[in-house]
Amino acid sequence: MIKVGIVGGTGYTGVELLRLLSRHPQVSLRAVTSRKEAGMPVADMYSSLRGFVDLCFSDPADQPLQDCDVVFFATPNGIAMQQAQAMLDAGIRIIDLAADFRIRDRATWEQWYGMEHAAPQLLEEAVYGLPEVNRVQIRNARLIANPGCYPTAVQLGFLPLLEAGVIDTRHLIADCKSGVSGAGRKAEVHALLAEAGDNFKAYGVPGHRHLPEIRQGLARMSGQDVGLTFTPHLLPMIRGIHATLYGRLTRDVDLQQLFEQRYADEPFVDVLPAGSHPETRSVRGANVCRLAVHRPQGGDTVVVLAVEDNLVKGAAGQAVQNMNLMFGLPETTGLELVPLLP
Amino acid sequence: MIKVGIVGGTGYTGVELLRLLSRHPQVSLRAVTSRKEAGMPVADMYSSLRGFVDLCFSDPADQPLQDCDVVFFATPNGIAMQQAQAMLDAGIRIIDLAADFRIRDRATWEQWYGMEHAAPQLLEEAVYGLPEVNRVQIRNARLIANPGCYPTAVQLGFLPLLEAGVIDTRHLIADCKSGVSGAGRKAEVHALLAEAGDNFKAYGVPGHRHLPEIRQGLARMSGQDVGLTFTPHLLPMIRGIHATLYGRLTRDVDLQQLFEQRYADEPFVDVLPAGSHPETRSVRGANVCRLAVHRPQGGDTVVVLAVEDNLVKGAAGQAVQNMNLMFGLPETTGLELVPLLP
Amino acid sequence: MIKVGIVGGTGYTGVELLRLLSRHPQVSLRAVTSRKEAGMPVADMYSSLRGFVDLCFSDPADQPLQDCDVVFFATPNGIAMQQAQAMLDAGIRIIDLAADFRIRDRATWEQWYGMEHAAPQLLEEAVYGLPEVNRVQIRNARLIANPGCYPTAVQLGFLPLLEAGVIDTRHLIADCKSGVSGAGRKAEVHALLAEAGDNFKAYGVPGHRHLPEIRQGLARMSGQDVGLTFTPHLLPMIRGIHATLYGRLTRDVDLQQLFEQRYADEPFVDVLPAGSHPETRSVRGANVCRLAVHRPQGGDTVVVLAVEDNLVKGAAGQAVQNMNLMFGLPETTGLELVPLLP
Amino acid sequence: MIKVGIVGGTGYTGVELLRLLSRHPQVSLRAVTSRKEAGMPVADMYSSLRGFVDLCFSDPADQPLQDCDVVFFATPNGIAMQQAQAMLDAGIRIIDLAADFRIRDRATWEQWYGMEHAAPQLLEEAVYGLPEVNRVQIRNARLIANPGCYPTAVQLGFLPLLEAGVIDTRHLIADCKSGVSGAGRKAEVHALLAEAGDNFKAYGVPGHRHLPEIRQGLARMSGQDVGLTFTPHLLPMIRGIHATLYGRLTRDVDLQQLFEQRYADEPFVDVLPAGSHPETRSVRGANVCRLAVHRPQGGDTVVVLAVEDNLVKGAAGQAVQNMNLMFGLPETTGLELVPLLP
Repeated sequence: MIKVGIVGGTGYTGVELLRLLSRHPQVSLRAVTSRKEAGMPVADMYSSLRGFVDLCFSDPADQPLQDCDVVFFATPNGIAMQQAQAMLDAGIRIIDLAADFRIRDRATWEQWYGMEHAAPQLLEEAVYGLPEVNRVQIRNARLIANPGCYPTAVQLGFLPLLEAGVIDTRHLIADCKSGVSGAGRKAEVHALLAEAGDNFKAYGVPGHRHLPEIRQGLARMSGQDVGLTFTPHLLPMIRGIHATLYGRLTRDVDLQQLFEQRYADEPFVDVLPAGSHPETRSVRGANVCRLAVHRPQGGDTVVVLAVEDNLVKGAAGQAVQNMNLMFGLPETTGLELVPLLP
Repeated sequence: MIKVGIVGGTGYTGVELLRLLSRHPQVSLRAVTSRKEAGMPVADMYSSLRGFVDLCFSDPADQPLQDCDVVFFATPNGIAMQQAQAMLDAGIRIIDLAADFRIRDRATWEQWYGMEHAAPQLLEEAVYGLPEVNRVQIRNARLIANPGCYPTAVQLGFLPLLEAGVIDTRHLIADCKSGVSGAGRKAEVHALLAEAGDNFKAYGVPGHRHLPEIRQGLARMSGQDVGLTFTPHLLPMIRGIHATLYGRLTRDVDLQQLFEQRYADEPFVDVLPAGSHPETRSVRGANVCRLAVHRPQGGDTVVVLAVEDNLVKGAAGQAVQNMNLMFGLPETTGLELVPLLP
Repeated sequence: MIKVGIVGGTGYTGVELLRLLSRHPQVSLRAVTSRKEAGMPVADMYSSLRGFVDLCFSDPADQPLQDCDVVFFATPNGIAMQQAQAMLDAGIRIIDLAADFRIRDRATWEQWYGMEHAAPQLLEEAVYGLPEVNRVQIRNARLIANPGCYPTAVQLGFLPLLEAGVIDTRHLIADCKSGVSGAGRKAEVHALLAEAGDNFKAYGVPGHRHLPEIRQGLARMSGQDVGLTFTPHLLPMIRGIHATLYGRLTRDVDLQQLFEQRYADEPFVDVLPAGSHPETRSVRGANVCRLAVHRPQGGDTVVVLAVEDNLVKGAAGQAVQNMNLMFGLPETTGLELVPLLP
Repeated sequence: MIKVGIVGGTGYTGVELLRLLSRHPQVSLRAVTSRKEAGMPVADMYSSLRGFVDLCFSDPADQPLQDCDVVFFATPNGIAMQQAQAMLDAGIRIIDLAADFRIRDRATWEQWYGMEHAAPQLLEEAVYGLPEVNRVQIRNARLIANPGCYPTAVQLGFLPLLEAGVIDTRHLIADCKSGVSGAGRKAEVHALLAEAGDNFKAYGVPGHRHLPEIRQGLARMSGQDVGLTFTPHLLPMIRGIHATLYGRLTRDVDLQQLFEQRYADEPFVDVLPAGSHPETRSVRGANVCRLAVHRPQGGDTVVVLAVEDNLVKGAAGQAVQNMNLMFGLPETTGLELVPLLP
């Protein structure tokens, strides 16, 4: 059994990790920390966990994580980087669901995240936890930077096209739509049901923090810098991301075959039949990204449609997938989840 | 033209007042105060008002309300009671959309609202602004306590039954459901879309502040104390209240006729045909309460179904209705709003 | 392995059965029938099942169910009663998720369902599949009448009170609210998102088919006829039922203790701590009914709050629970589902 | 007073026309036809209209429209073209909210709409009712082809860029999202709340009927054929369209100034301040299109964000705007609607 700890279990990625880990057959959940809620039963905060999680939130001061094999950080940006070196030195492996180790270039990170990086020496060691790209490195990693929710969908959607070199990389467009759980469980007016419900809008069009992360990933795939316009929008629903991706084809190719072959062996990427329109509910609660690829009217524009549950394949599920790889388990262990539909 | 001011225009009852008053043919909107947002154009906060409201939020310190004929308080509880006496002394009439003057008994108010009343001398003068009950007094009032959203629907639903004395007043039940805008525009976790969306629950079952207000109103109608169980619930939508009311019939009566006759001359109460089920969307954005009365299987239980838009007939619309009465205008002036459906 | 068939797998209870049974460790899914969709892969209709259900819909004419140990009917009312006798004669056990065998009295059934009963000889043998009441009989049953969604919540909520004889049974009230999936996957205008979304209303107040079913169940619990007013409402969401139940206490009793003791050994009924307000999202996707019991202001009215997922504990999950009992499996097999929250 | 008739008043554009026309100060509503509902009070179908519309649906066989000055067709595609010539011959002007007269080229229309055109002789006379482009022609028109909902938002968003000739017209992208009311009030499974709620997906990516309409309009603006990729998506809400438009800049230009100048005199197009993100709720129920223009990171891609209420500026409101122009009224008559927010 893998001894697991969670730092910051009160947010949405935290409760989602608890949902998945509490039923994982190879996991022994040791501690969930929260400075504010220390002593409170976890299931008192999330009644969905009654009967599944018996732990109380631990005070970090009590060092409840020191015997863990792996610790998940389900914290705001800037926390994991302060604790990572000491944990690694103590032999604890780390999966950070926040952004601290996602950007290889320190200056870029500090510019977009507006703070000084507390552990720049770990940036090179950290492995970007997108198994479809970095499976081998993940297996041997001590420190995983779990990808952002938008970046997962966008990268998986562009991956076959960029690896095959069939689109113009200077003018990619990612028009993305996300449910509100992606913004976390923070008391903010704009995220109230009375504000975000029955409403739709773009946000962060001048620049969103996931932009450099996506650009870094796409550049690795294509072997060169890419030009990307990334437009996130807020959906009046809780879970789900839909990425609509546009690229200009530079040569003729069987797109359906390209996608099916690239993902033939991937357990958590599902290429739909030609002509499909994936819907977010088809992945609700499950660790899968479903894709469809279109070439409208046979023109030179390729349109990729990608859906994922932002809290699962876009966060906690992918984190568990990474843990499985790190500990030599079958990659799907604990992740054979049937989406909840309707 | 009536010179109108609003204290606290940043919340939902505030923006709703602005929607109604900006198109009211007899109103000149003079000032909307907000300490925090002073100087900011109102339409910068609510883009729906672009082109309709040109005012900036005023600093209360600048005394922008002193020339007003009437001032609406769209503030949290406990604000109006601090300013009311001085305004009244200056000849300004007041319509308080909060709860400060709704409860006649000071001790009851202080118990339920958890603070000392700052203007107990005004409690007797204040007129409870439910026109269907107090129309004459409203016409002559200087100070209106605008009813709460739940109390409006519950009182209008029970009114014909209590006035006619046909139900057992000891065991009334009001099972009420409200959209989230009733909780105001406060940054609180439980009101996030990710918490309150796709969800339904009761709250405040042990005791809700609208209970004494409703009980006071029902007691006046029936001429005696009433026993009431009031259960509010939170709907995963923004606007709308549905009250489902239960009473035991003490004598046989034509319920449909009773309701139709009682409300025959009321411009803003609509009794639906026998057998109807009013829906909240049928009043969305409009100043109307629609009612249906049932007697399931011909038994001795009467079931009244009442819907209203909590921000209109349950708040801002009723406040404007009261203003019309106070200033001798036709009661429907500026309130001939067609509900937005679908 | 239990060989399982499903009749009518295209509706919401059908897809929910498939979600549960496809991951059930003791089930071998043999056939899902659909006259209209025969030959189509099940996962083409519900992409959520891709990778989990490989079957195509079978034509009933091909007799694909004849080797099954048990058959679930996820059909409209009136189908199971036509096929039940022949299947039972062939040694196949039946769990009917529709209403055909829920009412013991034939005349009552025919009156409320508006058709002649095709298998009245089975009405006495059929066991009402509410395990918390009929566990022993279910173990030995050949034919299970799986309870309706509303009846499950209402009966579990009133059960401790009626068994203990502490409330006046003449005037019970069940004010119930359901998500729209309870109405099934039928193309009807009133169930469109543009009609039922952002809206709330009661329906069926004069009389709903679940009324006689509930009354029958409550009468068995209390040993006498009961008077019940049942008011269903439609929630603008997909899954979830909330029942708000009212009764008059006839003697003093520790309600919290009463409920906790009654359900102490029940794996799928969860009594929340005193003062709680259960929310529908806390049971989303899981086979559990959560309850809270209140006595507002210490009066003589008891208020019970009950939530369930109408498609799980209110339908498919309870059906699987019944199957587990019928085949001697641990009752929770395949049903240890963590609710999906947020 | 203008004598107005409506053909097909039972759908969503019909009820929206009724909402607007019933309060229009210069309109006398004479008849609303519906073969199926003839004789039924209009307000029985839409309780929101109780007190505002006293008409019953008329049987078209009774020729209730023959005295009208203008008739609105709120019908499915293919109806108006059958009746238009006779009405025009009788001196009745026509505003068709369906697609019958939107495409100038008959072959294109027949290809996309899959039927033979019944009045090809009117295609040249018909004026495309987008006032911001065709105001003068609308004033003198007998027959208006009211634009589609998507086409209105997309054309208004691209208009300043195309007229100024500052973008590459070969590779335009319109990523559009619409509430479900755009699909009309038809009983179809995919539009059920249980299907379309809590869900998001693209549809019609291979080709949508609004594509040729948009392309025709953009071509007129730019004076040449345009290449357009149009991707519609379905939002889990009722009203509102958000168009996110992408183009490649071919020369440097002050985009904010360009948009503000182009729309300076337009009463129903609102250019938001630089850096804004318009939201659909800011136009709910109102006849306005709000726009924002961005140039992310100062690159060569321009992003235009456009919102409208698909039933108002995208349908019924624009139709009334056209009527105002046709009858010499101030363009805003009856359309000074404050959006409903929250």
